[in-house]
Amino acid sequence: MADWLSPESVSEVTRVLDLAGVFANGLLGGVLARGRKLDLLGFLLIGVVSGLGGGVIRDVLLQNGPPVALTDYAYLPVAVAGSMLAFAIDLRQQVSGLVFNVLDAAVLSFWAVAGAQMTLAAGLGWLPAVLLGMTTAVGGGAVRDLLLGTTPGILLNGSPLYATVALLVSGVMVICTELGAATIGIVAGVGVGTLVRLTALHRVWVLPGDRDWRPLSALDRLRRREDEVRREDEVGREDGGETEA
Amino acid sequence: MADWLSPESVSEVTRVLDLAGVFANGLLGGVLARGRKLDLLGFLLIGVVSGLGGGVIRDVLLQNGPPVALTDYAYLPVAVAGSMLAFAIDLRQQVSGLVFNVLDAAVLSFWAVAGAQMTLAAGLGWLPAVLLGMTTAVGGGAVRDLLLGTTPGILLNGSPLYATVALLVSGVMVICTELGAATIGIVAGVGVGTLVRLTALHRVWVLPGDRDWRPLSALDRLRRREDEVRREDEVGREDGGETEA
Amino acid sequence: MADWLSPESVSEVTRVLDLAGVFANGLLGGVLARGRKLDLLGFLLIGVVSGLGGGVIRDVLLQNGPPVALTDYAYLPVAVAGSMLAFAIDLRQQVSGLVFNVLDAAVLSFWAVAGAQMTLAAGLGWLPAVLLGMTTAVGGGAVRDLLLGTTPGILLNGSPLYATVALLVSGVMVICTELGAATIGIVAGVGVGTLVRLTALHRVWVLPGDRDWRPLSALDRLRRREDEVRREDEVGREDGGETEA
Repeated sequence: MADWLSPESVSEVTRVLDLAGVFANGLLGGVLARGRKLDLLGFLLIGVVSGLGGGVIRDVLLQNGPPVALTDYAYLPVAVAGSMLAFAIDLRQQVSGLVFNVLDAAVLSFWAVAGAQMTLAAGLGWLPAVLLGMTTAVGGGAVRDLLLGTTPGILLNGSPLYATVALLVSGVMVICTELGAATIGIVAGVGVGTLVRLTALHRVWVLPGDRDWRPLSALDRLRRREDEVRREDEVGREDGGETEA
Repeated sequence: MADWLSPESVSEVTRVLDLAGVFANGLLGGVLARGRKLDLLGFLLIGVVSGLGGGVIRDVLLQNGPPVALTDYAYLPVAVAGSMLAFAIDLRQQVSGLVFNVLDAAVLSFWAVAGAQMTLAAGLGWLPAVLLGMTTAVGGGAVRDLLLGTTPGILLNGSPLYATVALLVSGVMVICTELGAATIGIVAGVGVGTLVRLTALHRVWVLPGDRDWRPLSALDRLRRREDEVRREDEVGREDGGETEA
Repeated sequence: MADWLSPESVSEVTRVLDLAGVFANGLLGGVLARGRKLDLLGFLLIGVVSGLGGGVIRDVLLQNGPPVALTDYAYLPVAVAGSMLAFAIDLRQQVSGLVFNVLDAAVLSFWAVAGAQMTLAAGLGWLPAVLLGMTTAVGGGAVRDLLLGTTPGILLNGSPLYATVALLVSGVMVICTELGAATIGIVAGVGVGTLVRLTALHRVWVLPGDRDWRPLSALDRLRRREDEVRREDEVGREDGGETEA
């Protein structure tokens, strides 16, 4: 095997990719904090939560020693650097540009790969690996959104396949690892994830929400008909329109 | 002792009850997510948090290995199934009906019993057992409410003895276990809890809030009198009415 | 060394200080819960989160056995007592008074000291010690704010150096401990922290927010000029004023 595929190189490459993700998410946290009346330390804390939160949640759930973000001294300064850059310069226009979208998609995919890999390495099975891969990728952003007072974006109808891509990539990584091809899993996961996310952004692919979904079971059709009959009796109910939409 | 009371049977029965609770709470999470603009994956994640959150918080606090929800492969699919059912069919009317209320009260009580039991089994004492019993029962719902952008219902004046029942049941379970009658504790805890919760719902029993409570100590009466004197001087203060209520 | 500086005395003194902090924060939690439609148990839970949350987050991240708040039986009743006092008597005026401010500043500083010390004692290095010192001091309040439905106060522009003081004190404690003078670190940390916090409150010292900060780099000046040119073309953009402020 080529020298650049030795375990040491792979491990060093993954660490650099991981830190690039920490920087990008620390920066994104700072950008989202703009205009919300946060102070300098507020930016810093939001950046740290954005950049390190997903990995910390994963490590706490794995119960496998203190989080990497606390024991590897590169993580915290890199997250802080990202948020401080967003504090110093208003980058709100830049982060909706193509370069940032590509970086964000790659980081999302890479974190899913890394989370799935670490879960398998801790001796857990494929199902927690898929779940914690996704958690690693989207957990920090979810806690950041909560701290900023909004419902986490990953839950909402309208964001083009963000957590879905993380779930898909974790699945790819788990399958490749089970087949003994972890290195291929890293490359394939990041490649497929980045591609799917960018295509979803471009084509505005979103998952269905509860109003788009039309239930088709006989049971439900029956229930609907009962509803309609009932509604004719009590005209003017406030949430009457929702099951129709 | 009868065969159906052997440790294996009890353990199998408790697992089935636990999974019934995961399903019911996954479903309830999905029902509460309706009309909030969540997508398919949002429903799924809310269902997982609703159904598994309380147990995960308990296991993380016990520091006794990865959460059961990650190591026992039945949990995650059952929570997902509950939330997917709520996604496919609009069950908002059904969950305020009697059947769901009985199921919900039984699950609340059973989870309190299970949380208290697991805490004692992990070698901790009666006080953390009572606290983590309640946490197991209400923790998932609290995090779900936070993610959906509302103050957790268990804190609010007006919900008929929800967390209070969990606290009571945990206490019953701890006392029975200390007396060497854990199996009786399970049955008594679930029975008493379900009964108290359903009665509270029916009679609209609620705990007092800060405005209902009339302090009666000499110190407070004195303080009030001072307040009134002060208020006569500064008429028109904005929050003047609150200490009177 | 004098008898009152023996390890046993120091450890007993720190435990009493820690419990004083739990009481003060349980009480503050109850005070902030006033007027929010919480019931008796809601007050109790908010008090417990306020008083014990920071230490619990620290202990979960240290992965060093169950949180002290669960294994030392003094903690939970003391937090409950604080919140129950705030439930029984409306103390909203008292907590903005001088006595409470001094107590709050001392507790903030002491918790930062204690968190940093425990992190070092668990074998982690200076960087996590500083971070977890701050987390111990402000974590409970942040989770309390989230539960009450507001963005945590520590993030916001306008609170005079709260989390900043915790960060400073953690740093002082870590430096003193590295120099082999942990007892001096406790005294110096609490003294300096209390003084800085009270002065900041008095003089209304706050950290800069994103609108106060005027970026001075050549890159940014260039970017601004481009912005202005662009803005002249598209008059009437909705968020046009923000980069100017």
